[in-house]
Amino acid sequence: MEIFQHMQFVDLIEFFGTFAFAISGVRLASAKQFDLFGAFVVGFVTAIGGGTVRDLLLDVTPFWMQNPIYMWCTLFALVFVMIFRKHLVHLNNTFFVFDSIGLGLFVVVGVEKTIELGYPAWVVITMGTITGAIGGVIRDMLINEIPLIFRKDIYALACVFGGVVFTALYALDVNLFINEIASASTVIFTRFMAVKYHWHIPILKGEQNKQ
Amino acid sequence: MEIFQHMQFVDLIEFFGTFAFAISGVRLASAKQFDLFGAFVVGFVTAIGGGTVRDLLLDVTPFWMQNPIYMWCTLFALVFVMIFRKHLVHLNNTFFVFDSIGLGLFVVVGVEKTIELGYPAWVVITMGTITGAIGGVIRDMLINEIPLIFRKDIYALACVFGGVVFTALYALDVNLFINEIASASTVIFTRFMAVKYHWHIPILKGEQNKQ
Amino acid sequence: MEIFQHMQFVDLIEFFGTFAFAISGVRLASAKQFDLFGAFVVGFVTAIGGGTVRDLLLDVTPFWMQNPIYMWCTLFALVFVMIFRKHLVHLNNTFFVFDSIGLGLFVVVGVEKTIELGYPAWVVITMGTITGAIGGVIRDMLINEIPLIFRKDIYALACVFGGVVFTALYALDVNLFINEIASASTVIFTRFMAVKYHWHIPILKGEQNKQ
Repeated sequence: MEIFQHMQFVDLIEFFGTFAFAISGVRLASAKQFDLFGAFVVGFVTAIGGGTVRDLLLDVTPFWMQNPIYMWCTLFALVFVMIFRKHLVHLNNTFFVFDSIGLGLFVVVGVEKTIELGYPAWVVITMGTITGAIGGVIRDMLINEIPLIFRKDIYALACVFGGVVFTALYALDVNLFINEIASASTVIFTRFMAVKYHWHIPILKGEQNKQ
Repeated sequence: MEIFQHMQFVDLIEFFGTFAFAISGVRLASAKQFDLFGAFVVGFVTAIGGGTVRDLLLDVTPFWMQNPIYMWCTLFALVFVMIFRKHLVHLNNTFFVFDSIGLGLFVVVGVEKTIELGYPAWVVITMGTITGAIGGVIRDMLINEIPLIFRKDIYALACVFGGVVFTALYALDVNLFINEIASASTVIFTRFMAVKYHWHIPILKGEQNKQ
Repeated sequence: MEIFQHMQFVDLIEFFGTFAFAISGVRLASAKQFDLFGAFVVGFVTAIGGGTVRDLLLDVTPFWMQNPIYMWCTLFALVFVMIFRKHLVHLNNTFFVFDSIGLGLFVVVGVEKTIELGYPAWVVITMGTITGAIGGVIRDMLINEIPLIFRKDIYALACVFGGVVFTALYALDVNLFINEIASASTVIFTRFMAVKYHWHIPILKGEQNKQ
């Protein structure tokens, strides 16, 4: 299939995306005094959680059970954090770039997998967003924090935008590779702009604020 | 099938139930300063979480992936809270009625779906309870609170009672529509009485209380 | 099949393991002032959570939906805690033994189920670890605590060791019963030694420790 013609490039990007997601899990776990095994688990769940929930909902075998690369990638992230921990704070911008590119690719993987199973656009967009955003939600639940994406940045909304672009271009029969670049770029660009210009989704003011 | 003859009435009730469940999620999210997207997600998960866990356990496609009405219903709930937020506290009794009716219907939907798949009574009752009660549990985990249903009211036990009534009347070959009304009413009546007369399940005194 | 020849012995061990896992859930729930229904749910989820996540990932019917024994076992654990709550603290060593034996057996059940489905060794070991360790993680999320296994003891690592032993002996065509005893013993022995000699996995020192 056309999708697999540019597999190697995608594999490389996916590796960096998984790595960046795992790094974010490992770092947050270390801030909570988790042991090495716990940090590995949190890093792994951050990287594969979104795709796993998507695959369970779609009733297909979870992707990470078919290839050990995601576990090796998490192990590599753990070792990386152990070795370079004193210098990681200087690499925050680099991780942000990796993380955003990974997010864009995760969304594309999610929407493609769902559209091939014949689901309508709104399910496709939802699954793309779940693929990109739920890993971080499970990570935050494991470390006992309120999920960050519900309160900061426009992380999940960037996934929705990417999914909308993909389903629109797909309906217009645009070449798949161009579509992938366009929809992943939408996710990445939205996230970059949101962070650069401090875009936030308005907070829902509740009646509780008056009490 | 007989079940689908009164579909329109059930659809209407289900809409109000979903709406009431989503409202409860959106309101609790707003109290935690979630942004609009986060409030939407929490509202949606509250409304569809129980049925989704049930469908994953039964290995059928999650119900909300087959009809966008549940997402629209959650969006409607979000807009409703935004517009009427200063008046919501006066509507608490109305929401309680909606929420209880929705709970009764969710339980009936859960038990029927499970009994049609050929499971024994104890699985049927368990799935009815999961359908009704787990959405609120996931909601409370997302907002980082100890699940309310484990400490207050007899919410989940009302679901169990409804499931017991359904399986008993089903075994007695009672007309399905009458059975649905009877079992949903059992859930609603139990919940009403529990709140009105402050019924609580005894707290389990642990050895820790002595320390 | 050979596996089922020693079924009765395994059933008995599994009953005690489930009972010990449920006891740990009920006791922690009681320390958080959960009501009896909440304590039952937490006990049940502690006992069946790991195997349920495994079965969802493997796309087979969750084991506890095929036999009500796990619910009865949890109910028995709840009644046991209610009756003997003042004396439980003196039974901590006994529970530790039950819990460890149960852990060893849970891991063996998980690796056997996965290996029969044709998965490679690394998936088999992962599923054994998930079967043994995830119930406690969900328990801790329900009571709003940071999962204990990520910070204390070498609980999950003991499961990994047991899975490694099983897959190694399985590859060497060792008799299945001997393999089960050897791999379960590995889990139990590792856990005993870790507690006796205060073995811990090193904590991942993060950059945050400097702040």
